[in-house]
Amino acid sequence: MDVAEQARPVKGFRFAGISAGLKAVFGKPDLGLIVAERPAAAAGVFTTNQVKAAAVILAQNRLRAGRLQAVVANSGCANCFTGKPGMKLALDSCAVVAKEISCPLELVAPCSTGVIGHLYDLEKFRTGVRAAAASLSHDGLDSFARAIMTTDTVPKVASTTIRFGGVDVTIAGAAKGAGMIAPRMATLLSFIVTDAALPSPVVRRALIRALPESFNAITIDGDMSTNDSLIMLASGAAGNRRASARDLAGFEKAVGATAASLARQLIYDGEGATRLVTIEVRGARTKADATKIARQIANSPLVKTAFFGCDPNVGRIVAAAGAVGVALEPNRVALTIGGVKVSDRGMILTRELPAAAAAMGQREFTVRLDLRLGNAGADVLTCDLSLDYVRINAEYTT
Amino acid sequence: MDVAEQARPVKGFRFAGISAGLKAVFGKPDLGLIVAERPAAAAGVFTTNQVKAAAVILAQNRLRAGRLQAVVANSGCANCFTGKPGMKLALDSCAVVAKEISCPLELVAPCSTGVIGHLYDLEKFRTGVRAAAASLSHDGLDSFARAIMTTDTVPKVASTTIRFGGVDVTIAGAAKGAGMIAPRMATLLSFIVTDAALPSPVVRRALIRALPESFNAITIDGDMSTNDSLIMLASGAAGNRRASARDLAGFEKAVGATAASLARQLIYDGEGATRLVTIEVRGARTKADATKIARQIANSPLVKTAFFGCDPNVGRIVAAAGAVGVALEPNRVALTIGGVKVSDRGMILTRELPAAAAAMGQREFTVRLDLRLGNAGADVLTCDLSLDYVRINAEYTT
Repeated sequence: MDVAEQARPVKGFRFAGISAGLKAVFGKPDLGLIVAERPAAAAGVFTTNQVKAAAVILAQNRLRAGRLQAVVANSGCANCFTGKPGMKLALDSCAVVAKEISCPLELVAPCSTGVIGHLYDLEKFRTGVRAAAASLSHDGLDSFARAIMTTDTVPKVASTTIRFGGVDVTIAGAAKGAGMIAPRMATLLSFIVTDAALPSPVVRRALIRALPESFNAITIDGDMSTNDSLIMLASGAAGNRRASARDLAGFEKAVGATAASLARQLIYDGEGATRLVTIEVRGARTKADATKIARQIANSPLVKTAFFGCDPNVGRIVAAAGAVGVALEPNRVALTIGGVKVSDRGMILTRELPAAAAAMGQREFTVRLDLRLGNAGADVLTCDLSLDYVRINAEYTT
Repeated sequence: MDVAEQARPVKGFRFAGISAGLKAVFGKPDLGLIVAERPAAAAGVFTTNQVKAAAVILAQNRLRAGRLQAVVANSGCANCFTGKPGMKLALDSCAVVAKEISCPLELVAPCSTGVIGHLYDLEKFRTGVRAAAASLSHDGLDSFARAIMTTDTVPKVASTTIRFGGVDVTIAGAAKGAGMIAPRMATLLSFIVTDAALPSPVVRRALIRALPESFNAITIDGDMSTNDSLIMLASGAAGNRRASARDLAGFEKAVGATAASLARQLIYDGEGATRLVTIEVRGARTKADATKIARQIANSPLVKTAFFGCDPNVGRIVAAAGAVGVALEPNRVALTIGGVKVSDRGMILTRELPAAAAAMGQREFTVRLDLRLGNAGADVLTCDLSLDYVRINAEYTT
C-alpha cells in the first residue's frame, strides 16, 4: 500500500490550524479545526484510562449517532482532571464552533491535549475559532497537524488514494504523539478523513480493524494518556457508487496503512527518541503471548537505555521476555538485532556483538526474538530511552 | 521494631567477602561466602522470571530439603542464559565450596549477579573460595555485603536482636540491588541469617510473610531480574528453648522489619536515584486494587522523571492511577505530595503546588492517593528516574 507521509486534499473537508494563545509560548499554533461541508459518517476510539478528559467523554457521546460535521482540537491544555468546570468548558467550546460554522451543536466533537489539570481561556478559544473558521481551506491538513503538536518536533500526516466504487477516493490523516504514549485504544489525538461514501458502521469497522497493527502496536514510554482520541470522518464527496466487498477490503487496507504510517511517525518522533526499533516476536504459541512479550521488551527501561547506548544487550531483552508470565524455554530462543544473530539456543554469540552494535547505530533497526514454540507472532514499535527523554520530562510540566 | 542499618555477629555463622578477579575492575570484592558451623534450617524465595540463572535453579533444588551449610555468592557475572555450560559451572562452583569447607555438596547453594549471558572463570573462582574460606569471621557480614555489590554504591546490611524462647537471638541480613529491580518474589541477592533454633518450615513462613511489605513492595525500574534470590538461614546457635506462639510472632515481625530495612536501602541506592518516594494508595476497594495502582504510579517513567525534576505533577500521577483497569472516580480522589494536599475532588489545588515542589526537594517524601472508594490500602517504595539512570544503563553493559 502506497502511503505518503504528506497531506493531500480530501473532497468535502476543509482544515485550519492557527494560534489562539492557549499555549504558553506566544504565536505557536494550538487550535485546529476540521469541517465537513455536510454531516459526515464518523467513528472514534478513545483512551481506556479511568481518568478521561472532558473532551473524550463528550466526543464519545457525540459519536454514538455516527455523524459529525466538525472536530475542534486544541493543544496546550488537556482539560482533564478538571471536574465540572472542565465539562462545561468542553461543552461551551463546541457551542462556539457550532455557532461559528452554523451547524447543529451535536455534530461538533472536541479533542484536547496538553497539561493535565488546567482549564483554557474560553474567550481566547472563541477568538481562535473565529480565526480558524476564516482560514479553513482544502489543503489545510498540514496546518491542522501543526496546531495539535505538544512536545512533538514535527507534524505527522499521511495520505493515500485508492480506486473505490468506480472512482478515486482519498484517505488522509494527522496525528500527534511524543509522550505518555502506550495506547490501549488509540493514541493521543489522531484524525483520519476520507471522501469515500460509506455508512458509519463501515467507517467504524475500518477504524477498529486498523488498530491492532497501528496505534495499538506502538509504545513510547508505557504511560497511557487520559486524552487518547482517534476520530475518522467520511464525507462521501468522492461520489462513488455502492462499494463491492472487494472495494471494502481495499478500503480497510488503505485505512490500516494510513494509520500505521501515522503510528510509525509518532514513534519516530517520540520524546527524546534517537532510535526507532521494531520488536518482532515470532514462534509464540499464541498471538496474545507474542504481543505480551513484545510489549514488555518495548517498555523495559533497561532495554530502551541499551538501545540508546547501542548496546546489543541480549540479557536485558531475554530477561524482559521472561518477566511476563508467558512460559518460554530459554534454551530454544534465538535473537537477532539489526539482522545480526546474537543468540541461539540459550547462549550469546559473543563474536557477533560488535556487528550488532554497529547495526544499532542506524536510526531504525529490528529486534527479532524467535521463541520456537509455535507459529504466532506480533510486532511492537518502540523508541529508545535517552537522556533527552528525562530532560524533557523532568524540566517541563507536560 | 528497632532495626539498625548495620551488621552484627550472629551465633553459628561466619562470613567473608573477597576479590576473586571475576569483575572487570581489578581488586573489587566479587565473591562472598556464608558458612554455618553446622547445617542450618534454610528457606529461599526466587525470581519468577521464565529465564532463570543456573544458580537460581540449583539453589531452588538444594532448598527443597530445608537445610544448608554454606551459601556462595558472586557478583560481576550472572551466569544466566548460559545453557548447559552455565549449569555445569554452578555445580562445579558448589563442589569447590563443599570441598574447601568440608561439607556435603547438597548443603551448598550458589547465587550469582552481574552481566547476563557470560560465564565466569572457574579457576579464579576456586582461588577466590580458598581466600574467602581463609578469611571467614563472625563479624564478616559487612565484607560479604560489599562482595555482592554491582552498580550499588553502598553495601546494604540490617540487624536486630529480640528476646526469643528465653534468650537473645539476632537477625541480620545483607542485600544488593541497584537496577533490574521489580521483584515478584525476592530481589536480586538478599540474605538473612539468625541464630534462633527453628525448624525450616517456620523459617520459610517467616520469610514468606516478610515479603509483601519488603521486597515485593519496591521497584526501581519495573524490570524483573533473572537472578533474584532471597535466602534465609537459622543456625540455632542461640540455644533458645522451644518458641512460644508469642515468640514466633515477635520473630516474624523482626524478620519482616529486617527485610523491610534492606528493601528500603535498595531503593535509596537505586541506579541514579536522587529521591526515595513512598507511594501510599488509600481508600481502595481491595488491597489488590491498591497495590496495582501504587505499582503503576511507582513504575511510570513520566511520574519518575517528574520526581527527578521536583515537579508536583498531579496529572501524570492520576493518569497512571487510571491506566491499570481498576475502576476509580476522578471526582473523588485526593492527592497529597510531601504532606501537601495538591488535589481534591478531581481538581488541582494550584496554589499549593509551590509548597509541594519544595517538599519534593527532600531526599525522601511520600505521595498519598486517596481513592475514597473503600478501606483498603497499599504502599510501594520507588525512586526517581534521573539522567544518571540513563547514563549508567546506556554506557555500561550490566
